[in-house]
Amino acid sequence: MRTLGDMSEVYAARRARLHDQCTAAGSAAALVSRPANVRYLCGAVPPGAVLLLGPVQDVLVATEIPSAPPLSPHLSFGPTRSEEPRLLVLPGADGDPAVAAADLAAADGADSLAVEEHDLTVARHRALGAAAPRLRLADLDRAVEQLRLVKDDEEISCMRIAGELADQALGELLESILVGRTERHLALELERRLVDHGADGPAFPTVVAAGPNAGRPGHLPTDRRVEEGDFLTICLGADYRGYRCQVGRTFVIGPSPADWQVELYDAVFAAQRAGREALLPGRAYCDVDRVTRQVLTAAGYGDALEPCTGHGVGLEIDEDPRLTPSAMGKLDACVPVTVEPGVHLPGRGGVRIDDTLVVRPEADGGPELLTITTKELLAL
Amino acid sequence: MRTLGDMSEVYAARRARLHDQCTAAGSAAALVSRPANVRYLCGAVPPGAVLLLGPVQDVLVATEIPSAPPLSPHLSFGPTRSEEPRLLVLPGADGDPAVAAADLAAADGADSLAVEEHDLTVARHRALGAAAPRLRLADLDRAVEQLRLVKDDEEISCMRIAGELADQALGELLESILVGRTERHLALELERRLVDHGADGPAFPTVVAAGPNAGRPGHLPTDRRVEEGDFLTICLGADYRGYRCQVGRTFVIGPSPADWQVELYDAVFAAQRAGREALLPGRAYCDVDRVTRQVLTAAGYGDALEPCTGHGVGLEIDEDPRLTPSAMGKLDACVPVTVEPGVHLPGRGGVRIDDTLVVRPEADGGPELLTITTKELLAL
Repeated sequence: MRTLGDMSEVYAARRARLHDQCTAAGSAAALVSRPANVRYLCGAVPPGAVLLLGPVQDVLVATEIPSAPPLSPHLSFGPTRSEEPRLLVLPGADGDPAVAAADLAAADGADSLAVEEHDLTVARHRALGAAAPRLRLADLDRAVEQLRLVKDDEEISCMRIAGELADQALGELLESILVGRTERHLALELERRLVDHGADGPAFPTVVAAGPNAGRPGHLPTDRRVEEGDFLTICLGADYRGYRCQVGRTFVIGPSPADWQVELYDAVFAAQRAGREALLPGRAYCDVDRVTRQVLTAAGYGDALEPCTGHGVGLEIDEDPRLTPSAMGKLDACVPVTVEPGVHLPGRGGVRIDDTLVVRPEADGGPELLTITTKELLAL
Repeated sequence: MRTLGDMSEVYAARRARLHDQCTAAGSAAALVSRPANVRYLCGAVPPGAVLLLGPVQDVLVATEIPSAPPLSPHLSFGPTRSEEPRLLVLPGADGDPAVAAADLAAADGADSLAVEEHDLTVARHRALGAAAPRLRLADLDRAVEQLRLVKDDEEISCMRIAGELADQALGELLESILVGRTERHLALELERRLVDHGADGPAFPTVVAAGPNAGRPGHLPTDRRVEEGDFLTICLGADYRGYRCQVGRTFVIGPSPADWQVELYDAVFAAQRAGREALLPGRAYCDVDRVTRQVLTAAGYGDALEPCTGHGVGLEIDEDPRLTPSAMGKLDACVPVTVEPGVHLPGRGGVRIDDTLVVRPEADGGPELLTITTKELLAL
């Protein structure tokens, strides 16, 4: 795995690619403000920091002085013509780094500035325009999100580790007694184990849903206690060096599942398998969604489905691409995505099965599974 | 404490106040999109939901069907002319509720729509304008944040409980062994105890900072273990029914503090007391900041100070007002704020002392302290 020092070359190369895109699009400068995008281009930076790719220099503008790690050690604190962006810290907490960055761009001779219109609020955008009226503000759109789609070996390596950490935490929990414990406690337990095993933290608030809550999308853990006969759905993710991975499994509590539970589980399992097997370079995003969805519709669960079969994963737990019926675009090799169909039957419970996989060519063995906890229906 | 049913009257009254403000400002309709603001006006709603205060009806627009609590039971699922806003759920995950809301407003005859320009991104704002081109889009600005400044008895009651929960979790931790445990573990332990005692969750990522990390603002817990001789700063908050409260304390690990530690602690304590005592109706925000700051500057720590002495607390852990040197405005009774000065000496450690208090008239006893953990310097 690369050292933090080696990473400065990687970041510089990414910024250079973005520079080239902007130049081709006619923008003299670009302002990156979405936190995950700034991180992708510079490494870990203080909250609220923005990156200016200027006509003359790259500058990271922040309101806080990073006084201790984890600020990437390659960021310097003064003017430099090396590969690293110069760090400019605003005095006081009230200034907007984006406004200061626009000022700098104009001062360095830029006549246009591409900004992330899907991140900057109208208020901030107005302030930018007022501070640097000679700058023509353009839209950078999702240029950085597009760069982030295909992951390099280093990134996938971090995600592989994040997947292992999530699998480990889940595996340990399954060896403990679950009946009688609340959803909240189990979620906190899982998050503690993630950190114990080396995760920087959970990738998102852990979902633990028991009984009638099982399978419910976005269920936040409550004080409901796990009971015999319950379906129990768990979805958790680990954050390792900023990279995320998520896994979701469904269990039955008690000596054996009821017939309706086996039937539902088999349908979701078949749907999720169909989705996983569709993860090949060149397959349309909406196709992966379609093959997954049709298994569940054919099994009679069409009304209980959700709008989204899966999504990209990387520096954010939910990033491009999105696997939905209306999604445009096709999978590429080395794009990590989740496949996470589920069925929720209000009042009864439900099933959700969720993996993170990396798209690989068929010749290389097809999609690489990052989350290897068994998908067999376990009765605990 | 009010039942959820009673709350529908409270929400309706808040929406009516906002309606009146908008009418006075010349807007036929308003669109509220900031999550805490939507919550203030409607109760707990699905993520991403927006509220339209239209010329004819109030409508909550969401992309998810709330299938289980905690959606406020007073929200109905069909057209109604009662006090409750109608709930409109968009099919599919890709639609923007804000765009649908603007459509509705135009269809109901509005010629103008005030939006939260400090929340909507440029991209969303453009989509709104494209979807409803006859609507003149105006800025609602921080009208809802202003309404939220002064809390009613119910809100303060929730914050009082949140304060107790944070105090309890902290108190229990102090009875346990701290030496040898990592910052991360202590933070997770605190969060578990918060939930055990009845909090909906932590109000923000718990800060535990030991040794050279102590007193560092925004320090995220690491694997550093607590050692004898350390300063240990802890800052945590509880979320109770959406309302938050935070407390921060500094301890010394070992039989007794060193002289430099006592000296630093006394200075921060004196500064924080000066800030607390300044919390009276009519005092300027910048004044509270000034009296706190000058104690630390006089003691020689002027270079190590932060830009902000405290901030409002309510549905968000960090809301209006802000107690900074450039803040405009004056305190009112029943406004809860934090007073949280700190000094961080890189490489050595530091001190932070943080309380949440409610501004009360002098005749009523002055500021009400919500976080009562002792501020005496304890050697643990």
